Amino acid sequence: MAPRSGCPINAAVEALGDQWSLIVLRDIIFGDRRSFRELLNGSLEGIASNILSSRLKSLVAAGLLSHEPAERGRRGRYSLTEAGIQTLPIIVALGNWGLDWRTGTPELRIRQQLMRDEGPSFLDDFMDELRVRHLGAAPARPDAPSPLARLQAAFEEQSRNAG
Amino acid sequence: MAPRSGCPINAAVEALGDQWSLIVLRDIIFGDRRSFRELLNGSLEGIASNILSSRLKSLVAAGLLSHEPAERGRRGRYSLTEAGIQTLPIIVALGNWGLDWRTGTPELRIRQQLMRDEGPSFLDDFMDELRVRHLGAAPARPDAPSPLARLQAAFEEQSRNAG
Repeated sequence: MAPRSGCPINAAVEALGDQWSLIVLRDIIFGDRRSFRELLNGSLEGIASNILSSRLKSLVAAGLLSHEPAERGRRGRYSLTEAGIQTLPIIVALGNWGLDWRTGTPELRIRQQLMRDEGPSFLDDFMDELRVRHLGAAPARPDAPSPLARLQAAFEEQSRNAG
Repeated sequence: MAPRSGCPINAAVEALGDQWSLIVLRDIIFGDRRSFRELLNGSLEGIASNILSSRLKSLVAAGLLSHEPAERGRRGRYSLTEAGIQTLPIIVALGNWGLDWRTGTPELRIRQQLMRDEGPSFLDDFMDELRVRHLGAAPARPDAPSPLARLQAAFEEQSRNAG
């Protein structure tokens, strides 16, 4: 389908589709959920199975995800493409706005706060890590701490404090 | 309505609503369109009147816009709130993705390219200008060139070259 205009903002808005597409990308990026089942069962917002299915299809069609179908003994798996990895700055900008203008749950806010405190170089390192995990790239700095592991550790510590 | 989760990314996604809400914010920010009529008639993507009406209402309800109703001799007018002005980084992140991953129309891409080339300080100045235009703030630097005028000049020059 042709886009509604030649504006780059509109092009991105059309590619990302609706609210659920962004939430699915968030769960793939930050939750490292790669299968339909993990995305469905782990959904914090309770995404419906038919919505998840249609959004995954449209994200593949828009070039943001690739899909290896299930084969004998191996589950189907979704991976971010480079274009999908580069949605990270959009998702982080959304999260920064949410930190400032909405209340929420401390353990769900701590990762966003950490990304904001760490600044752009953390996002660059995180995108490099996503290239390793999703595109099979070689690690740029094999001995550097994993940004995803740091985000996960912050989430777990905050969850323990809340519990 | 309660948000579906306490996640700040989800909160922003719910506040911004669907594709058309982002396109309406884009037109208010970059096109300085402040009335229903200007937003409808100027729409590059051909937004339908009932969609525009519902998205303006939900942007007001979400605290991103304020609305002065029409009075005798004066048109109704929409203004960005501070929360609305702070969606600029989200919209710019979307546009940067569109520049990299989609083709489009040169005169519609030149403003996004200029913002990317100028970097974060240009966005800070642009948000200051939006505070003057929409919130009645005093100009931080009265003699500085207007970022909106620079974007508009770049668009017009590119349109002439294309014509």
